Amino acid sequence: MGALEALRAYVRETEEISAAAALAAWDQRTGMPEKGAEARAKVLGRLERLAFERLVSDRMAELLRAAEGEAEGEIDRALVRVWKRNHTRHRAIPPELYQKFVEATARAEHVWEKAKAASDFSLFRPHLAEVLDLVREIARLIGYRESPYDALVEEYEPGMTTARLGEVLGTLRRELTAFLQELRQGTPPAPLPPGRYPVDAQKRFCRDALTWIGYDFSAGRLDDSVHPFTIGVGPGDVRVTNRYREEDPFSSLFGALHEGGHALYGQGVAPELAWTGLSGGASFGIHESQSRFWENQIGRSLPFWRHAHPHLVRHFPALARTSPEDVWRHVNRVEPSFIRVEADEVTYNLHICLRFELEVELVEGRLSADGLPERWKGAMGEYLGVVPPDDARGVLQDVHWSGGMFGYFPSYALGNLYAAQFASAAEREIPGLWARVARGEFLPIREWLRERVHRHGQVYLPEELCRRVTGEGLSPEPFLRYVRRKYGEVYGL
Amino acid sequence: MGALEALRAYVRETEEISAAAALAAWDQRTGMPEKGAEARAKVLGRLERLAFERLVSDRMAELLRAAEGEAEGEIDRALVRVWKRNHTRHRAIPPELYQKFVEATARAEHVWEKAKAASDFSLFRPHLAEVLDLVREIARLIGYRESPYDALVEEYEPGMTTARLGEVLGTLRRELTAFLQELRQGTPPAPLPPGRYPVDAQKRFCRDALTWIGYDFSAGRLDDSVHPFTIGVGPGDVRVTNRYREEDPFSSLFGALHEGGHALYGQGVAPELAWTGLSGGASFGIHESQSRFWENQIGRSLPFWRHAHPHLVRHFPALARTSPEDVWRHVNRVEPSFIRVEADEVTYNLHICLRFELEVELVEGRLSADGLPERWKGAMGEYLGVVPPDDARGVLQDVHWSGGMFGYFPSYALGNLYAAQFASAAEREIPGLWARVARGEFLPIREWLRERVHRHGQVYLPEELCRRVTGEGLSPEPFLRYVRRKYGEVYGL
Repeated sequence: MGALEALRAYVRETEEISAAAALAAWDQRTGMPEKGAEARAKVLGRLERLAFERLVSDRMAELLRAAEGEAEGEIDRALVRVWKRNHTRHRAIPPELYQKFVEATARAEHVWEKAKAASDFSLFRPHLAEVLDLVREIARLIGYRESPYDALVEEYEPGMTTARLGEVLGTLRRELTAFLQELRQGTPPAPLPPGRYPVDAQKRFCRDALTWIGYDFSAGRLDDSVHPFTIGVGPGDVRVTNRYREEDPFSSLFGALHEGGHALYGQGVAPELAWTGLSGGASFGIHESQSRFWENQIGRSLPFWRHAHPHLVRHFPALARTSPEDVWRHVNRVEPSFIRVEADEVTYNLHICLRFELEVELVEGRLSADGLPERWKGAMGEYLGVVPPDDARGVLQDVHWSGGMFGYFPSYALGNLYAAQFASAAEREIPGLWARVARGEFLPIREWLRERVHRHGQVYLPEELCRRVTGEGLSPEPFLRYVRRKYGEVYGL
Repeated sequence: MGALEALRAYVRETEEISAAAALAAWDQRTGMPEKGAEARAKVLGRLERLAFERLVSDRMAELLRAAEGEAEGEIDRALVRVWKRNHTRHRAIPPELYQKFVEATARAEHVWEKAKAASDFSLFRPHLAEVLDLVREIARLIGYRESPYDALVEEYEPGMTTARLGEVLGTLRRELTAFLQELRQGTPPAPLPPGRYPVDAQKRFCRDALTWIGYDFSAGRLDDSVHPFTIGVGPGDVRVTNRYREEDPFSSLFGALHEGGHALYGQGVAPELAWTGLSGGASFGIHESQSRFWENQIGRSLPFWRHAHPHLVRHFPALARTSPEDVWRHVNRVEPSFIRVEADEVTYNLHICLRFELEVELVEGRLSADGLPERWKGAMGEYLGVVPPDDARGVLQDVHWSGGMFGYFPSYALGNLYAAQFASAAEREIPGLWARVARGEFLPIREWLRERVHRHGQVYLPEELCRRVTGEGLSPEPFLRYVRRKYGEVYGL
C-alpha cells in the first residue's frame, strides 16, 4: 500500500467513528429520552476520544510524513494539509492541559447558565478568568506570529489573522454605525399585526421552503430541537432541525432556510470527498455564508416573497390581507437591540464587531474578566446606541466564552460578508436570477452554489475559494452595498 | 488496578462502542434517510469490528485469565463467565473463516429475498448448502459433546443441549398435535366483522397499553419500523418500534405488548449491571418469555380485556357493540396455517418443533439442503395438517437460515414455555393477580418480574434463573396446562 493510500485508510476509519459520534449527538439533541442522557455522554466521550487519539497518534504523524511527498492532486494535497494542521494543532496541547481545559469549560458552562439566569456576572467572572488563562496557554503552545488570537481564529477560519479581521471588521463597524444613523432619518416599515400561527402549519411551510431550495429529504431529515442545527451524520445523510414559536411564522421559516443552507453545502460535497475529512466545509465562515445566503440574500428579498407569499397565505389564512411587499418590509425591520441572535441584518455584524474587539483584548491580555461588563456596555452604547440594563442581556448572553470558544464569533460576520460576495457573483453569472427567484426557480442557484462552492468541501482555503468564486478575496464592500441598497429602499431613503 | 477492575474497564469501553452501534442500528431501521444506507453500513461494520476485535483480543484473554481468580461475588463471577464464553467461542473461529461466513450469509440473504419473491427454493438451495457447510465447520471448531447443534444452540440459550431440547420439544409436539385434534371437536369462536381502524388511533392505543404495563417513556421511545423490534441503546434508553395495519387493531396492540415485554426487561436490569455486558437478558429464550408473558399470558387473557375493552371502544368506536368476551374470543382463535409469524398460541410451537427437527438433521448431516422442501411439507402435514402450496409459504418463509442463525428458532418455543412457568409462579405469588389485571393494575406484575427476572440481567444461566423464579427448571407442563385450560374454554370443550 502506498503512503497516501495508508493515510486514506487510517483517516477513513477515524471518520467512520466520527460519523457514529455525529449520529449520537444528533439523537441527543432530538429524540433521546431524558434518562438516556448520562449514558449518551459516556458514549459520545468514548467515540470522540477514539477519534482524537487517532488524530494525535504517532501513527498519524508517520502517515502524514510519508504521504506528504506523494500528494500531487488537489484533493490529496488538501487531505495532507487539513489533517496535518489538525494533528499539529492538537498534538501541541499536552493531554493534562487539554483535560484541565475540558473540565474548566464544563464547570464554566454550568455556572454560566446559573449566572445568566440570575443575571449576575460576578458568579461567572472567576470561571471566565480561568478559561481565559487556559485558552491563552493553549494559544501560546499552538504558536502564532503576531497575536495569540491568531492561533485561536485559525481553528475556525484557516489562514485568517487578527490583523486582517481588525481591518475588515473595522471597516464594517464604521460603515454600519454610520448607516444606522442614516436609517434614523428614514421611515421604519410597519410590522404586521400580532397573530397566532399553528405550529403544524409552520412545519409544513418550512418543509415546502426546504423543498424549494433543493434540500434532498431522501438524504436527510427535519426534526424538532431546542436550538436549530444542521449535522452531517455521514455521506448521504445531512440532517436539519428547527424550532417553532406560535406567535411568529417567520422565525421558523428563516431558521429552515438558514439550516437548509448549511445542509445544501453538506449534501453538495463531491462524493469522492466522502470519508476523507474534507467534506465539512472550507471554514466556519464559508459554512455560515451558505446559511446566510439562503436566509437573508434570498429569503429576505422581495422576489422571494413574490413567490412565497401565496404559500404563506395558504398555510396562514390570517395573513390573507397582506401583500408580498408588506411581508418583505416586515422581515426587514432594523432595530438596535441587546441580543445578538435576535438582531437584524444591519445591526447583527455590530454585535460581532464588539465581541471580536473584546475577545482580542482579553486574549492579548489588555482586558481582564473584571473589566468586561463595563467595556461591553460602553461598546454597545457606541456601536448600537443601546446599553443593556443587566448582565443577562449583556455580557452573559452567549454560551461561547464559557466553552472556551474564543475566535469563533468572527465566523458569523465573515458568513454575512461571503454570502453577499457570492450573491453578487451569482447575480452576474445566473441569467435572470431575481426573475427566477420570483418564479420559485431556486434549483439553478443551488446548482451554481454546488458547482462553485459545495462540491469542493475543504479542498481550498476559505479565501482561496472566495477568490475562485468571485474573482476577489474577502471584502466587506458587497455586503455594505447590499444593505445600503435594500435597507435604503425599505426605509425610503 | 486489580485484575477485575481492569477487566471491567476494558469491558466498559467495549460496551460503549456497542451502544453506539445499537443506536446506529436503531436509526437505520427507523428514521435513517434512504441515501444514508451505504455509509451507515460502513459505520456499523466499523463499530462492530472494533467491539469484536476487543472481544477476541489477546488483551481480553489476559484480563480474563487474571480476573478469574479474583471473581468472588455473583456479578463478578457472571462477568467472567459471560465474557469468557463469548471470547472463547469467537476466538475459536479463524478470522478468514468468519469473513467467509459473513460474505456467504450476505449473499445468501440477498438471494433468499429473491427466491422468496419468486417462490423458488432451487435459487436458494446452493446458498443454503454453502452456509450450512460453514455453520457445521464453525460448530466443529467451537466444539461440542454430543451434537454439533449443541455448539450452535449454546449461542442463544447457554447451557441448553440438543438432547434436552429434543425431549422438551418432543413432548410439546406430541401434546399439541393431540390437543389440536381435540379442538376440532369444539366450537370455533366467531371472528369480529372486518373493519378499518385508523393508524393514528392504533398508535394512541398502543401508547396507552405500553403505559399500562409500566414502560417508561422517559427511558425509551416508540417509533415505526417495517418489523417491530426492541433495542437497548444504553442504560436508561431502551427503545421499541411497531407497525400498523389499518384492517387490524390487534396486531399492533400485541406487537406493542410483545416489544413492551422485551423493553421492560431492559429497563428493569439493575443499574450496577450497566456497561458490564450483563444487561442483555439471561438468554434469547428468557428474553422471549418476557415478550410472550405480556403479549399472551396477560394480553390474551379475559381479565385483560375486561380492563382494555372500554379503551378499545374509545379508540375505535366501530367496535362499540362488541363485548370484552367477544374480543377475547376473537384474539384466541386457533387455526393451523402456513406462516409461523401469523400463528396462534397453540400452533406456533409446532412451527418451531418442525424447524428444530429439520435444523438438527441439517447440522448433523442427516438431511441435505436438497431434501429440505419435501421434509418441510411432510412435517407440516403431520403436525399441523396443512401442506404449503409453494416454497414462499413453506421453507422460504423465514430469514434465519440465510443468515446462518441455526439454533435460534428453539428460543421462540422456550420463550412460550418460560412465560407460562413465570405466569404460573406469578399467580401463586401475587395476591389477586387476575382481579388486578381486570382493574388495569399491571404495575405489581411488572415489579414482581423486575425483582425476580429483570434486575438479574445475565447474572444467572437461563435454567438457573427459571429455577429461582419458579422452583423448577424448564418444563413444558405449565404451558400445556395453560393452553388446555384457556383454549378448552374458548372452544367450549
